[in-house]
Amino acid sequence: MKFCRFNKDRIGVVQGELIHDVTSLFDRQLSWPTAAGDAIIAQLAAVHASGIDLAKMPVVPLADVRLESPVANPNKIIGAPVNYHAHIAEANADAEINSGRTYTTLEAYGLFLKANSSLIGPADDISLAFADRRTDHEVELVVVIGKTARHVSRDDAFGYIAGYTVGLDMTVRGAEVPSYRKSPDGYCVLGPWLVTPDEIKNPDKLGLSLTVNGETRQSANTDLLILGVARLIEYASAIYTLYPGDIIMTGTPAGVGPVEAGDLIDATVEQVGSLRIRVIPARPTVQGASA
Amino acid sequence: MKFCRFNKDRIGVVQGELIHDVTSLFDRQLSWPTAAGDAIIAQLAAVHASGIDLAKMPVVPLADVRLESPVANPNKIIGAPVNYHAHIAEANADAEINSGRTYTTLEAYGLFLKANSSLIGPADDISLAFADRRTDHEVELVVVIGKTARHVSRDDAFGYIAGYTVGLDMTVRGAEVPSYRKSPDGYCVLGPWLVTPDEIKNPDKLGLSLTVNGETRQSANTDLLILGVARLIEYASAIYTLYPGDIIMTGTPAGVGPVEAGDLIDATVEQVGSLRIRVIPARPTVQGASA
Repeated sequence: MKFCRFNKDRIGVVQGELIHDVTSLFDRQLSWPTAAGDAIIAQLAAVHASGIDLAKMPVVPLADVRLESPVANPNKIIGAPVNYHAHIAEANADAEINSGRTYTTLEAYGLFLKANSSLIGPADDISLAFADRRTDHEVELVVVIGKTARHVSRDDAFGYIAGYTVGLDMTVRGAEVPSYRKSPDGYCVLGPWLVTPDEIKNPDKLGLSLTVNGETRQSANTDLLILGVARLIEYASAIYTLYPGDIIMTGTPAGVGPVEAGDLIDATVEQVGSLRIRVIPARPTVQGASA
Repeated sequence: MKFCRFNKDRIGVVQGELIHDVTSLFDRQLSWPTAAGDAIIAQLAAVHASGIDLAKMPVVPLADVRLESPVANPNKIIGAPVNYHAHIAEANADAEINSGRTYTTLEAYGLFLKANSSLIGPADDISLAFADRRTDHEVELVVVIGKTARHVSRDDAFGYIAGYTVGLDMTVRGAEVPSYRKSPDGYCVLGPWLVTPDEIKNPDKLGLSLTVNGETRQSANTDLLILGVARLIEYASAIYTLYPGDIIMTGTPAGVGPVEAGDLIDATVEQVGSLRIRVIPARPTVQGASA
């Protein structure tokens, strides 16, 4: 199934041009402190397995809604750097991308984190963080964790996945650590929905692409991932506990490049979906509050 | 006032050897999706300003409770690297600390993030992430944000602080990015409580120290911070929105060094408090799930 969040936190199942509103099937009452992670993602597998009678659910045309990030309350957003050979090669060849670093392997670099406050959905805009610095697009297959995972082996990893979505790991180029350059508000775009694992035969063999104003910039396949989906879950869960709603951005293929205010980005992952989002200018800052 | 969290999410006010249980003064009902940040920290200033009649609140001896991290649900944990000159010098002089990097300024390095899943309180233990890698202690003054902040100037920054606490930014040494090496489960220790700003005349002039098994390893004063508390809030809020409960670890002074299983760490910040926590061995992993 394709689960989405829409129109200020309704939960939907997408079928063709319709959304079935299944919000009533979920328990949305919480109390402080909340359990780590997203309460809806934690219920997703059980609701799905219970057999949803979509014919009984109210429907709304997909074209009429505002789609939001399919995860609302992640505990963390994990990024996999340098996970495609061709992207490592382009990064090492371009001083504007590498800022003096030499990239070798993901394990040498470790995983980075993006701030939860950077998360937006496809109906939002990407506001450039700096008027005078380069921001790049990076399209990625994104894995959303479905249940608590710690020291999970790659052989068991697929049992911990809630679903897949499309992600943009927007990135300011420069010398700072990635958790700074990849974390401005709006620099993590997820959407258009979450596709459950039963609909994705092999997440390590999916085409993915990105266009800017209709021109193809990135086009690759997840069969080129150096660390595949299962190994990423093993590697991440060996260092920290993963919770329902944790987001693993699996890395971007070659073709990264700058975007400008006014650009329209289309990002697609095969069998998952497509999202379109606009880039807007840097918002004015108050005097003296400089980065 | 000194607010604490204790005994599985009770909220207390510490006075001398007693805790007044003020849980009933807070609204703990939430619904999905939760607003970004910690719901109790968001209410703290208003509850404090309302004038708490501590005499009417049930009391429990401080010595009898289990203290938890004073923040339960942070949106993000922000770290300030290389923010004391003497620590920059020791890091650049020691290949085990710098792993080939040369540290210059905080602004050149940017802020790092620690995973929310790394957060523990003083009654927990620090479980080493790796049996065969060096983990260091780093004591820090920690600022907890009290209300939503974006593009806040340093002149206004103190108005956004909920309080101060003591932090341990535990760190695996190595070449990976800090968001990986500083994020294992248990590598962010906060406690023993949150001291409200009215009790701290000047957060940029507080002694802080750390001992391991009674031997002093770190001893300094926050008047040596390169970027003081107000500038850190300005710098952080220029890149991302800060939410109530966001944690800013202000950086560690010189004297960092390795800890071993069995070590007992005491960390103190003047006018804030002290916490004591034990280091325990790396937990066994399942076969094949390697980092």
